[in-house]
Amino acid sequence: MKTIVIHATVLTVNEKNEVLHDAAIAFENGVLTYVGPIPDSLSDYEEIINAQGRIVMPGLVNTHGHTAMSLLRGYADDLPLQEWLETKMWPLEAQFTAEHVRWGTSLSIIEMLKTGTTTFVDMYDHMDTVAELVAESGMRARLCRGVIGLCPPDVQTQKLEEASAFAAKWNGAAGGRITTMMSPHGAYTCPPDYIERIVARAYELDLPLHIHMSETEWEVQQNVDDYGSRPVEHLEKLGVFNRPTLVAHAVHLTDEELDIMQKYDVKVSHNPISNLKLGSGVARVPDMLAKGICVSLGTDSSASNNNLDLFEEMKMAALLHKGVRKDPVAVPATEALRMATIYGAEAIFMEDRIGSLEVGKQADFIVIDSKQVFFQPAHDPISHVVYAASGRDVKDVYVQGVQLVKDGQCLTMDETTVIEGANRMFATLEKK
Amino acid sequence: MKTIVIHATVLTVNEKNEVLHDAAIAFENGVLTYVGPIPDSLSDYEEIINAQGRIVMPGLVNTHGHTAMSLLRGYADDLPLQEWLETKMWPLEAQFTAEHVRWGTSLSIIEMLKTGTTTFVDMYDHMDTVAELVAESGMRARLCRGVIGLCPPDVQTQKLEEASAFAAKWNGAAGGRITTMMSPHGAYTCPPDYIERIVARAYELDLPLHIHMSETEWEVQQNVDDYGSRPVEHLEKLGVFNRPTLVAHAVHLTDEELDIMQKYDVKVSHNPISNLKLGSGVARVPDMLAKGICVSLGTDSSASNNNLDLFEEMKMAALLHKGVRKDPVAVPATEALRMATIYGAEAIFMEDRIGSLEVGKQADFIVIDSKQVFFQPAHDPISHVVYAASGRDVKDVYVQGVQLVKDGQCLTMDETTVIEGANRMFATLEKK
Repeated sequence: MKTIVIHATVLTVNEKNEVLHDAAIAFENGVLTYVGPIPDSLSDYEEIINAQGRIVMPGLVNTHGHTAMSLLRGYADDLPLQEWLETKMWPLEAQFTAEHVRWGTSLSIIEMLKTGTTTFVDMYDHMDTVAELVAESGMRARLCRGVIGLCPPDVQTQKLEEASAFAAKWNGAAGGRITTMMSPHGAYTCPPDYIERIVARAYELDLPLHIHMSETEWEVQQNVDDYGSRPVEHLEKLGVFNRPTLVAHAVHLTDEELDIMQKYDVKVSHNPISNLKLGSGVARVPDMLAKGICVSLGTDSSASNNNLDLFEEMKMAALLHKGVRKDPVAVPATEALRMATIYGAEAIFMEDRIGSLEVGKQADFIVIDSKQVFFQPAHDPISHVVYAASGRDVKDVYVQGVQLVKDGQCLTMDETTVIEGANRMFATLEKK
Repeated sequence: MKTIVIHATVLTVNEKNEVLHDAAIAFENGVLTYVGPIPDSLSDYEEIINAQGRIVMPGLVNTHGHTAMSLLRGYADDLPLQEWLETKMWPLEAQFTAEHVRWGTSLSIIEMLKTGTTTFVDMYDHMDTVAELVAESGMRARLCRGVIGLCPPDVQTQKLEEASAFAAKWNGAAGGRITTMMSPHGAYTCPPDYIERIVARAYELDLPLHIHMSETEWEVQQNVDDYGSRPVEHLEKLGVFNRPTLVAHAVHLTDEELDIMQKYDVKVSHNPISNLKLGSGVARVPDMLAKGICVSLGTDSSASNNNLDLFEEMKMAALLHKGVRKDPVAVPATEALRMATIYGAEAIFMEDRIGSLEVGKQADFIVIDSKQVFFQPAHDPISHVVYAASGRDVKDVYVQGVQLVKDGQCLTMDETTVIEGANRMFATLEKK
């Protein structure tokens, strides 16, 4: 079917960041076929959607998270990091079955869709369940089984095989909506030789890598103590950066580490809200952007956020670095918008398919109700989207040209059932 | 009429921060008459409201702003502070008439009401217009004509008389919903003798004072250069703190200045989002709270935010200080909630009337739709309100027992008319 959306304010997020007023986008078979002024004739189109008073923009890309952990939203806040992990998160996560993952991830998928995220990265366990839910929901995702190597060699091997089998099985699945990565959890949770084995497997499968890196000062010091070098140099030595790599957090970095990341074109998932909430610190985002390092945005899990609204992450990225550096010019709105969209696509090596509204790209887009007070005066839609909007302002969401959210309601998953399931599974977990 | 709200999750924000599950609040003639378990008999009540699946909490208190400036939302972002002020804000504000204030403030009132703020502070010009709108809208406000003293003595006098006349006329108006303050704009915009005259007038009228203080390092240095002391000591010498005083921003403070503020019980309006956006810096909130200084929350204007959703301010206050201090225990959720409610009431000297849900207080409360995914698992409502909610989740708003917002729609002002008016008035402003 040929569909055209007309009378929209279109944020293309193309190379020039063009904003088109009273414009149109058209798509067919899930691919954008037109972006520009409203055509003189609409007779070619079988479906015509009037987006008067609405902003149409690329779906957001959430480049780091653990969706199952939405099951632990609000369970434990405001605790020192190690106490939070050791007495709260780990004991409950240890009880997670595929059924817990099913309902936690379902909760996350509905939340992300309703707040305008069309593509997400997930690093967790029971990933077949996650992939099945992505397929069912209509979303797009880059998935990886995150492996922790602090275990006997046979368990390491089993986890690696499981991660590889998952990655091979699902890459390109669900009409191309699902792609995969290989994921050593982190340098502090995987011995060097285990990381090397995972990198070798990424070569074999021709897949990128995703890893937590330099989230806390403790982790950096631990790396120095254990291996004699900071995490970036350590991972460089292990050959990680010879593969396309997305690192999450990247908070504590020296100038030399930034140089290495620039050299290897390492992609970054900046998670400002999680980094603040856990007391991890503030990443050097303006320095990364100045070096041309690709910085995208991630929510991390709902346990350290506590929601998956990427609009909040976008506003935070635009605000935080201005304030901390006392530089009101740092990370302007246009750059924050790119971090949430096209840089997100680049960070997961999919900029040829998603991240902007341009002919030939996938029809992954969201429609914002900009007739509300928050968007007045109707002056600068990029400013309003970054500084004034909330994910709750998203009304319609399309992925591959298929509508997944209509007037704020998810069409592909039943919200009531998912809420009931999530509460039921949370109740099964033994708390101390 | 006697009204009771039943089956609600009630965040009382009383001294113990009690959360009541499946509970009730009742009110009559605008005053809370009951807060507790659902009574056995409801036969006393003429109106019974079922709040099943909803959180009922005190209306939020926004303790610093310039509501008319919503007319400039998104007009100029991402500029150095002086350029922003001198080339963008001031030239346009100089063109503001009472009609501009009418539509800018109307936009702000609707936005605040819809996102759960029931009481706000406004410091601006054309304040009669603002007060009329507050009266019409049903909101509660503490208003002041902010005076800038960088002008000839006769103009200074004229402004002071205008501010005094406004304060005297409106204090206690609109059934007590409007109260007033006297407001020297700042130490860097008012000569010392002018500040002393304003303080004297505050004594005569028996009103508190509201002033910008120590927002930027530039301002502090300016004070040292001009008067030989930092702003806190300077204002202390001028007798400001002998009156009840609310200072906005309070970003750059020494330990000695904190001691002075503690000694005089100076109240603070913390505006974290505006401070970040303008590159002003990060206030020492944990240090203030540790000293027992009252820290409330303000949005500042939409020109430096760019919305008036106090839920965002609450989450930011809970996150920012954890991250910057690398201390995940700083400003816990319970404290952030209090900053947005009861501390806000204390900051404007109204804690006997508003800020918590307790018998005898005004029936200013909001109802949040907590059946949504963002509030699941339904475990810790305070955590969810602070870390997961958005002002967009507010469905119903009551002030003095009168419903002002119903299912997300403002009942007392017409949103379409206001949006049209705001855009019309924005268009009249000459931009360079």
